[in-house]
Amino acid sequence: MEWPALIELAPQVFPRDVIERAKELSREIGSVGAYSHSQGVPFIRQSVAKFIEERDGFPSDPSHIFLTAGASAGVSLLINALITSPKSGILIPIPQYPLYTASLAQHQGLPIPYYLDESKGWSTSVSSIEAALEEAHKEGIAPKGLVIINPGNPTGAVLDEETQEKLVHLYEVYQDNLHRRDSLPFTSFKKVVSKLQSHVPLVSFHSISKGVSGECGRRGGYFECTNFSDDVVALLYKMVSVTLCPPLTGQIGVNCMVRPPKLGEESYELWKKETDTIHASLASRTQTMAERLNSLPGVSCVDSPGALYLFPQISISKKAREAAQAVGQHPDEIGFGQKEGEWHYRLTCLCPV
Amino acid sequence: MEWPALIELAPQVFPRDVIERAKELSREIGSVGAYSHSQGVPFIRQSVAKFIEERDGFPSDPSHIFLTAGASAGVSLLINALITSPKSGILIPIPQYPLYTASLAQHQGLPIPYYLDESKGWSTSVSSIEAALEEAHKEGIAPKGLVIINPGNPTGAVLDEETQEKLVHLYEVYQDNLHRRDSLPFTSFKKVVSKLQSHVPLVSFHSISKGVSGECGRRGGYFECTNFSDDVVALLYKMVSVTLCPPLTGQIGVNCMVRPPKLGEESYELWKKETDTIHASLASRTQTMAERLNSLPGVSCVDSPGALYLFPQISISKKAREAAQAVGQHPDEIGFGQKEGEWHYRLTCLCPV
Repeated sequence: MEWPALIELAPQVFPRDVIERAKELSREIGSVGAYSHSQGVPFIRQSVAKFIEERDGFPSDPSHIFLTAGASAGVSLLINALITSPKSGILIPIPQYPLYTASLAQHQGLPIPYYLDESKGWSTSVSSIEAALEEAHKEGIAPKGLVIINPGNPTGAVLDEETQEKLVHLYEVYQDNLHRRDSLPFTSFKKVVSKLQSHVPLVSFHSISKGVSGECGRRGGYFECTNFSDDVVALLYKMVSVTLCPPLTGQIGVNCMVRPPKLGEESYELWKKETDTIHASLASRTQTMAERLNSLPGVSCVDSPGALYLFPQISISKKAREAAQAVGQHPDEIGFGQKEGEWHYRLTCLCPV
Repeated sequence: MEWPALIELAPQVFPRDVIERAKELSREIGSVGAYSHSQGVPFIRQSVAKFIEERDGFPSDPSHIFLTAGASAGVSLLINALITSPKSGILIPIPQYPLYTASLAQHQGLPIPYYLDESKGWSTSVSSIEAALEEAHKEGIAPKGLVIINPGNPTGAVLDEETQEKLVHLYEVYQDNLHRRDSLPFTSFKKVVSKLQSHVPLVSFHSISKGVSGECGRRGGYFECTNFSDDVVALLYKMVSVTLCPPLTGQIGVNCMVRPPKLGEESYELWKKETDTIHASLASRTQTMAERLNSLPGVSCVDSPGALYLFPQISISKKAREAAQAVGQHPDEIGFGQKEGEWHYRLTCLCPV
């Protein structure tokens, strides 16, 4: 038996624009079974640059974009590059997604925790970062970068542009005093930095694991370096070359994320409907959850505009804590981190309602 | 327009056993768009264990198998785990595939080079490893593991079982004197170690990037830990959890590699024909290349039974070297490494002839 080429049957299964996209990617990539450039397929990095330019209104350089096996691989790489001594530290928000503390432990770096303000919807304040920097200075820890997770994980908080500008200015002030010139903040503030014509070195991460696509098992993501010299980019390229290239199917996922179907294309309607449904469902689900949590005794919850996560606080009575302690138990020993004497847990609000 | 499910058209395109395999994997995995267990899908790890058991005739524990994004990701992880101080080193063969020196540099470890013997078909000798250990001892470098690449890269040499046994015994002798008890050799000697009932801790790597499958862009591989305590495996699990899980499509590639079609299944004949053709073509191509290289003046080449690589030596006359030096040029400044005063390059002999 001869097996007919899959492409001949494709019109029975896929919309025309999807087939055109597949043919275009096939021409540009060759085979998903072959290595690509270690920074990722050039054509896909160009798509990412175009996506960033259209989003922010500022130029983006494909040669300073790295495709990765999910955002976590990129974060781990940058932490590896930044930690140069056992007294190197990275400013991380508390509560945080544990990836940062775990990567720091793996590369012998230290976390410099700064606290998010639950009373202001888990906002990031300049003063809490300044307090953390002072603490680090006392302990002889050199801050090598500032992590800002936006929208927040696990809090779901979204930063406003005014706060983002303040944070860029803070970094500009501090980098000359406290950071080496090659220090990098781990933020996704491309537009703010460009608008302010700031020279702050910036790495912005994005991945197909979160949001509407949610294709986490394919391991696709990217990071963009802004205000980096070519020699630092060359060093990062050398580092990523060790693992040869990111998974090709993950790279294709990135291409699909940054180039969704356009109005007029055959698959547009279905894509639009699915995307809108997911957005609406996430928003209503998060809203409902926050309302119900706030109606429970001993539970309070900041309403999250970030749509995917909630981080409710649980009050635990002194009596209950003492009873627990008596049998050697403690609430929330490990996790995202929180202020002393508070207890939270993360809720991920996925579809369907 | 309603899009019919791809599975309905599959019988027009794929052999029955391929469809059955896809359905089975779909049942076991759920979706390739979702995270799997950080060590890899349990069902696929069971396939790998079965493959190893059938190959070697010794038991294999799926809970001590890690699926990875290619062998390079696994090697990098283990080097990260082994290097505990700036005076930690790993024994690596020269010539070597540059992954090892690059990973060591990234994790602040030192290479302890031992030389392969070109005059004996690039064989690995106990005495060259002993010489390297002595050198390391003089320089205060603690050997934390022994890398053996089999079949060799870039040499293509294949070790005989007698040499493998000698190497296991060497490691047994040295590990108590020179290594910490948790040191790991980077080898693929599962069968030899099992047969000798040796307690040598062993990590064996395999990937879908090389050999007949050659699906390097999908990033799939695995490593198996032999003679490891559960707490060391737990530590490795913690480390791999940082990047969440290996790419699902790469994991599926591993499943296909360790469970090829069986006689009687619809796709067996095509698979067998393709595999035999690739093997025969690689062998004849390597043979032809080695013969032609050896017929050239100033070139000599060890005939490689490893089938994929050749590593010919080029003689460069003293006059030519001096002429080069006069204009500031040196032959082979960087690459796989070689003895002082020798020059080689790697040839990869891929299909078709």
